[in-house]
Order: sequence, then C-alpha cells, then structure tokens
Amino acid sequence: MSRASAPLGVFDSGLGGLTVVRAMLEALPDERIIYLGDTARVPYGTRSAQTVIRYARGCAKVLIERGVKALVIACNTVSAVALDILRAELDLPVLGVIEPGAETAVRALDGLPLATGGAPLPKVGVLGTAGTIASQAYPRAVAQISTRVEVLGQTAPLLVPLAEEGWIEGDVPRLAVRKYLEPLIAGGAGVIVLGCTHYPLFKSIIAEEAAELAGRTIPIVDSAEATARAVRRAIEEERLPRATEPPASRLELYVTDLPASFAVTARAFLGMDTSNVEQIDLGSSSA
Amino acid sequence: MSRASAPLGVFDSGLGGLTVVRAMLEALPDERIIYLGDTARVPYGTRSAQTVIRYARGCAKVLIERGVKALVIACNTVSAVALDILRAELDLPVLGVIEPGAETAVRALDGLPLATGGAPLPKVGVLGTAGTIASQAYPRAVAQISTRVEVLGQTAPLLVPLAEEGWIEGDVPRLAVRKYLEPLIAGGAGVIVLGCTHYPLFKSIIAEEAAELAGRTIPIVDSAEATARAVRRAIEEERLPRATEPPASRLELYVTDLPASFAVTARAFLGMDTSNVEQIDLGSSSA
Repeated sequence: MSRASAPLGVFDSGLGGLTVVRAMLEALPDERIIYLGDTARVPYGTRSAQTVIRYARGCAKVLIERGVKALVIACNTVSAVALDILRAELDLPVLGVIEPGAETAVRALDGLPLATGGAPLPKVGVLGTAGTIASQAYPRAVAQISTRVEVLGQTAPLLVPLAEEGWIEGDVPRLAVRKYLEPLIAGGAGVIVLGCTHYPLFKSIIAEEAAELAGRTIPIVDSAEATARAVRRAIEEERLPRATEPPASRLELYVTDLPASFAVTARAFLGMDTSNVEQIDLGSSSA
Repeated sequence: MSRASAPLGVFDSGLGGLTVVRAMLEALPDERIIYLGDTARVPYGTRSAQTVIRYARGCAKVLIERGVKALVIACNTVSAVALDILRAELDLPVLGVIEPGAETAVRALDGLPLATGGAPLPKVGVLGTAGTIASQAYPRAVAQISTRVEVLGQTAPLLVPLAEEGWIEGDVPRLAVRKYLEPLIAGGAGVIVLGCTHYPLFKSIIAEEAAELAGRTIPIVDSAEATARAVRRAIEEERLPRATEPPASRLELYVTDLPASFAVTARAFLGMDTSNVEQIDLGSSSA
C-alpha cells in the first residue's frame, strides 16, 4: 500500500472530534479516515497540560500503528497544549484545530473597517473550554497571523454537556449561549470562533444570539470546517492525496470505553448513523 | 496509634464527595477525615462498570495505605457498581451513599397514606447521573428495604457542570431542574432523592420546583446527610469512635490532578475555605 493510499488519522478525547470528521468527509471525498475517541478519559478540558500531553501521545501512537499518513488533533484542548510537541516528535503532517480557526477568523475580520490611529484594534472572540482559554493558544495563533488583532476568550462550560445530552434547542442552550456571548460582544468582538469541537451543534443559536446582542450580523467561524480545508491543503502540499478509488467504508471508529453509547450520541455530531464502533485498549500508552 | 484514633477515608471521582465530607464534619465532630478526589479521571459517571471498579480499587488502596479505619465511597456511580466488590475485598467497614439515601427516602414515604388493594404503590424519585440510573442501584437498594415501594429514575446530566461552574442560581439551573423533575412528579414520586453528590448545591431549587410541579411539599433526601448519619452508626457499632481529642486540622485533601483549581471550586461544596490540597499519583493503581 502506498503512503498516499493510507488513511487519515483523527483523534479527540471523545465525541466532539466527529464534527471535524464530518467536515473532512465532505471536504475530502476520496479519503479514508480512522477516528479514535478516548472516551475512557474524556473530558481532557479540565486536566493539566502534562496529563493531556501524555494522553495525546497515547492516541497518536495507536493511529500511527494503524499506518495513517497524517494526523489531525480534532480537539482544541489537545491542539492548545500538545500540537507543537507531537509535530516535533512525529514524522508525518500533524494538524490541530486552532491555527485553521484563527486564520479563518482573522480573514473574516478583513471585511471590517481597519483600525487606524487611536481606534481600537479589531477583535476575535473565542468560545472554548477552560483548558483552551487558559492555554492562550488562540491569542498566540492570532498573533502569528497579525499583531493588529486582539483576542477575547470566554469559557462556555455548559455547551459540552448540553451537546452530549442532545439538548441543543430551546431556552436553556439559548440562555447559556447568551451568557457566554455577552462579554465577547460587549468587548467588541467582530467575529466569534467556535473554539471547541462540540460547539458547531449550537452554531445557529450562537449566530442568532450574537446578532441580537451586537445589533448586526457577526461571522461565526466553525473550526471543524476550517480544519478540513487545512487538511486538504496539507496533503496536497505533501503530495499525499489518495489516487485510487476509496473503499466502500470510508470511516473506521475506535473508542476506549462505551462503544454502544458512543454510537448513539455520535449521530448528532457526525450527521449520519454509525453502525461499527470498536473498543480498543490504549494499553501501556495510558500509563 | 489505636485503630479508633485513625482517620476516616472518603473518596470520589472529583469534587462532589465534598458535600459528604461537609455533612460528616458536622455529624462526626471528633473524627479526622482524609479525602481523595480522583480529578485526573473525573467524571466516572460516563464510564463502564469495569473501568469504574478499577479506578475505585486504586482510590481505596491509597486511603488504606494511609491507615483509615473506615472507607466512605462518596460517589453514587462508584457506590452503584463497586460497593459490594470493595466490601468483599477489604477488611474494614465500607459505606456507600446509595443505601443511606434509599433508607431515608423509604422512611420519608412512611408519612404518606399506605397503598392498599389496587391503589398505586408509593414512589421514590431519584435524580442521578446516567451511570447511576442505568445501574439500577436505587431500585435494588429500595427493594431490600421494602417491596411495596416503586422507584422512578431520571438522569440529570446538566447539574454536575452547572455546580462545577458555580451556576447554581437563576433561570438556567431552574429550567434544567424543572425538566428533570417533570417526569418524576408526573409519575407520582412522593419523595426525591438527590442521587449525585453534586446535587445538594441545588437542594432549595429542587425543593421549590418539586413543590410547584406537585402542588404540595415533596421531601428532598440529601444522601450526603444520610450517609454521614450511617457512618456515625457504623463506627459506633464497630466500637471505632475516636476517644482522644481530634487534632486542630480535621481534614486532609488529596487530588490526582489540578489541586489549585480544586481548592477554588471546593468552597461551594465544602462550605468553607480549603488552604491545603495536595496532589498525589495513583501510580500503578491507575493502570
């Protein structure tokens, strides 16, 4: 099997990365994907950087053993703390979800009037988990693209459990979204980045509430879609697009715990039914 | 050091067990407590029974190595799946939070008119995590006390993140509580058990919403308080109450990750400030 015909590896602490898989299946119709959700140790968002790095190495190892040609860290928490380390340690393209989201957000601001003289800088608002916001990964990523853009971060801890409960409509998600958006819009954010792979499930509520709070349309950046585009560019640059016809089954799903309940909840994230979810043990990688 | 003067060991997957510690500090003013929160692997509520049992053995081992005279599993998920196993394996009193809560709930129903002939059985409503409800531990515990009482279970997945975010007042917790209580009250529950150690933070909202839905006062059973009373009875039966004066510091806190943020969030659960939270590694027990 040539390297180009190998699958793409995607991992996350749980379900959320499936929104990235969904965007990749659409943006990369010829590619095969192996997904690993580390459901035995979900969520990563409340853990220390040291612990997340250890878990990320374990997930990467499992996917590399299965021969993937590129690795996508479909998790903001892991991208924030482990991307540079995995890039340095591994001999294949490694992509995270933060750089693509930051790039798309800065481009979205380009349509806004440029700050001149004493005018305030244009601002990117980021919704994320406590871990992602504390890591300052978005401010760092934005600073590498433009030093004339400010970043406002806001934790949104209720959105992950709401998404996993399937409670994605009605007053409760709307009130939660509104509470989290208020400081961002009041602070002058001109674009909102969904800085957690669970948040695309609330994309329309977030767009509506942001528009209502701001009194105008606020672009919402879905980092799942931005990441899928970045993966396509990366495998084209590395001359790794698949040349041969893809197999009938384009997606393999692995989890480290509770495959049956994963398959049920996966539907809302993936936008389609998943029949086969296999449980694997990360073994010594988990120690 | 005599066995009676040894501390009591309490463990949980994270913060929630501190509501049990708080109740124990009040009910057992002479005793010393060592608490272990397995914050590196929280939450247990979404994991498989096999995984939870493995984690529980690791936590118990750490506390026993520190010489505790009794062990309290301050977590409904672990009590549901691991209590019988730890009792069989360990040579000290082991208490969970489910039996005391179930007992108190059945006693609370005693005040209600008895079901006779074709009348429906009195019903205990239980709010819990997905793991606790799926385990059927409350129906089993209630059946051992009375076969003339029915149990209705309801998962309440939003309450743990709301409690940990400190979002314990206002419309969002109230709407969430109302959504979770509706099927229990509509089903005829005459008493509500707080079947997760996080839920005492919402006790007054739960009492108010239950009363409004039912049109009358519904007793709310706080299993933290019920467990503290059960621990007092157990150490009296085993002749293990502490005889000597307790030391100035009655509480030692250990976690497996993020001690600083644990100390901050602990306040709401414990009802007092905690200065010293020490991080420990469960080492080979975690494998």
